[in-house]
Amino acid sequence: MPGEFDFISWVRSQQRASDLVQLAAGDDLAILNWKPDDLLLVGTDQVLDGVHFDSSVHSPRQIGRKAMNRNLSDCAAMACLPAAAVATVALPLGTAMEYAKELYLGMKEAADKFDCPIVGGDTASWSGKLAVSVSILGRSASVTPVTRKGARPGDTIYVTGALGGSRLGRHMSFSPRVREAYALAKTGHVTSMIDISDGLSRDLRHICDESGVGAAIASVGIPVHADAVQMSRDGHTALEHALHDGEDHELLFTWACGTHVHPRNMSFPDSDQPPTRVSRIGVITAGRDVIIEHDGKYTPLEPRGWEHTF
Amino acid sequence: MPGEFDFISWVRSQQRASDLVQLAAGDDLAILNWKPDDLLLVGTDQVLDGVHFDSSVHSPRQIGRKAMNRNLSDCAAMACLPAAAVATVALPLGTAMEYAKELYLGMKEAADKFDCPIVGGDTASWSGKLAVSVSILGRSASVTPVTRKGARPGDTIYVTGALGGSRLGRHMSFSPRVREAYALAKTGHVTSMIDISDGLSRDLRHICDESGVGAAIASVGIPVHADAVQMSRDGHTALEHALHDGEDHELLFTWACGTHVHPRNMSFPDSDQPPTRVSRIGVITAGRDVIIEHDGKYTPLEPRGWEHTF
Repeated sequence: MPGEFDFISWVRSQQRASDLVQLAAGDDLAILNWKPDDLLLVGTDQVLDGVHFDSSVHSPRQIGRKAMNRNLSDCAAMACLPAAAVATVALPLGTAMEYAKELYLGMKEAADKFDCPIVGGDTASWSGKLAVSVSILGRSASVTPVTRKGARPGDTIYVTGALGGSRLGRHMSFSPRVREAYALAKTGHVTSMIDISDGLSRDLRHICDESGVGAAIASVGIPVHADAVQMSRDGHTALEHALHDGEDHELLFTWACGTHVHPRNMSFPDSDQPPTRVSRIGVITAGRDVIIEHDGKYTPLEPRGWEHTF
Repeated sequence: MPGEFDFISWVRSQQRASDLVQLAAGDDLAILNWKPDDLLLVGTDQVLDGVHFDSSVHSPRQIGRKAMNRNLSDCAAMACLPAAAVATVALPLGTAMEYAKELYLGMKEAADKFDCPIVGGDTASWSGKLAVSVSILGRSASVTPVTRKGARPGDTIYVTGALGGSRLGRHMSFSPRVREAYALAKTGHVTSMIDISDGLSRDLRHICDESGVGAAIASVGIPVHADAVQMSRDGHTALEHALHDGEDHELLFTWACGTHVHPRNMSFPDSDQPPTRVSRIGVITAGRDVIIEHDGKYTPLEPRGWEHTF
C-alpha cells in the first residue's frame, strides 16, 4: 500500500515554477518572495463530509474544487488576487491513493484558473470522515482591499449572478467572482463587499452590522435563480430561497452614492465564464434596520441563512 | 444553543492589536502589512482525533496547543519567526461552546509565546470526529531560512533535547524550538535543518535525500530520553525508541564543517524553558548511505519512523 511519502513525491511533481515561489512544497514550509507593494491577505475555510459535500454522491475532484473555490471566493470578497494556498486532508482509513490525487487535482484545477499555486499541505488518514481544509493567501495587487465596513447611507446595493437553490448542485460548482471583484474594486467605487456564503439576508446583515448602517431592498430587483424556482416546491417561495439560501458565492457589494459609472454596464473580459450579470437590489440607509419591499409592503428582512450550530 | 456567530464575536474579542495586522479576523480575510524585507514562509499541519490526540484523554486546551505547536515547530525547522496563523476546527455535533473556546485558548496560548496572532479561522460542526487544521505564516526576520537541502560531506550533525518515547505524553506538550533554531541559524553555520516529527531515522533520511549526501551517526551520541527508557519495556530498546519514535519535535541540523564555534556551547537566553541541550550525533558523508555505529559495529540505519499509510 503506497504511503504518505509517495503521495508527497507525486504532489511535488505537480508543482510549477513561479516568480513568487522561491521554495515549493516538500520542505517544512514553502518560501515565498512577497512583493513589497502587496498587502497580504490570509484566511481559511474547510469542507466536511455530510456538511459541505456528500462523499457518497460527489467525486473527489468536485470536493477538492469546492474546498479551493470557497477560499478563492473569500479572495473575491476582499477584491484581492489569490497568491498561494495550502491544504490539509484527513482521509478515511483505506482511501486509495488515486482518490487523494483526485482531491488534489480538484483543488489544483480551481486554483490554476487564478494562477494560485498550492505550496504546501498535510495528508493523514484516520478512522473519521473526509475533511479538507484550505488556507489562502491573497495579494492586494494595487487595489485597496474591500472590507464589510465601508457602506454609507445612500450607497447602492448590488449582487452578481442569480441567487437561491444552490443546494441543487451549484454549491459544488460555482465560479468564484475573483476577476469581477477585482475589476469592480479597481474603479474605487465599491464601498463594502462580501461573498454570499451564509445567504443574502444574513450576509447583507453582516455588511450593515460592520458598517453601522441599515438597508432597504426591493424584492423585484432580486435576481432569482432557476434553481430557487425549482426548489420552491418545498413550500418556501423562490424569493425566499433567493433571500436565505447559502453557498451562492456571488458578490454582494455597495457602490458609492453619486457615482456616474454603473457596475451593471461593466464587462469582465478576463472571465472564462458567460458574462456575469450585476443586479441593483436596493440602497443603504441611515439607522440600523434592514427592510424589504415586496408588492408595496415593507417588512423587516430577518437573517435566516445558514448558521452552523454547536 | 449558541451559534457560530456568537463564537466568532467571542474570538474577535480575544484579538490584540499588532503592527503586522491591519485587519484581524472577522471579515472574509485578514489583512497584514507584510514587511518588505521579510521572506514569507507558509505551511499547514492538522491534528486528528485518534491519530494525533485522543479526545477522551486529552483536554481541548492540550489539543489546541498541540495543533499550534506542530506548526510553530515547522517555523523552527526553517529558522523563521512565526508571524500569523489561521485555523479550522471541525467539531462533533453537540460540542459545547466552552469546549470550542478552550481549543482556541490552547492554540492562542501556544502562539502567544512567539507573538504570533491568530488572524482567521472557520468553525463548523459535523457528525464526524474532532479535527483541527492550522496554517502558519513565518517571516525570515533577517536570517536566511534553512531548508533540508544544504548538508555537505564533513558537516557535523546535531540534535536538540532528548529523543524517544514522546508517546508517553511529550507529544502533547513539547516546546517548539523556535528561538533555538533562529539563534543557531543566525550564526550562518547551520547548513540544513528539520524538526523531528517522523522520527530521527526518517528525518535524517529526509535531509540526506534532499541534500544528496549520506550520514554516519554513533549510538553513543544519541540523547536518549527517560521516556524512551521507560518505553523499552515493550521489547524495543531505549535506543530504538530514540532513533525511530516520532513527534519529538526537536531540531535535527547540520553544522558547517571547519567552523570553530560549537552549537553545544550556545545558550538560548530568550527561552522560557530549562536550557536546551544540543548533542553532536554524527557527521555527513559523501555517498548516500546512512549508517549507525553501535558497540563498534556499523549497520545501515533504516528509516522506521512514523509514516501515515492510506
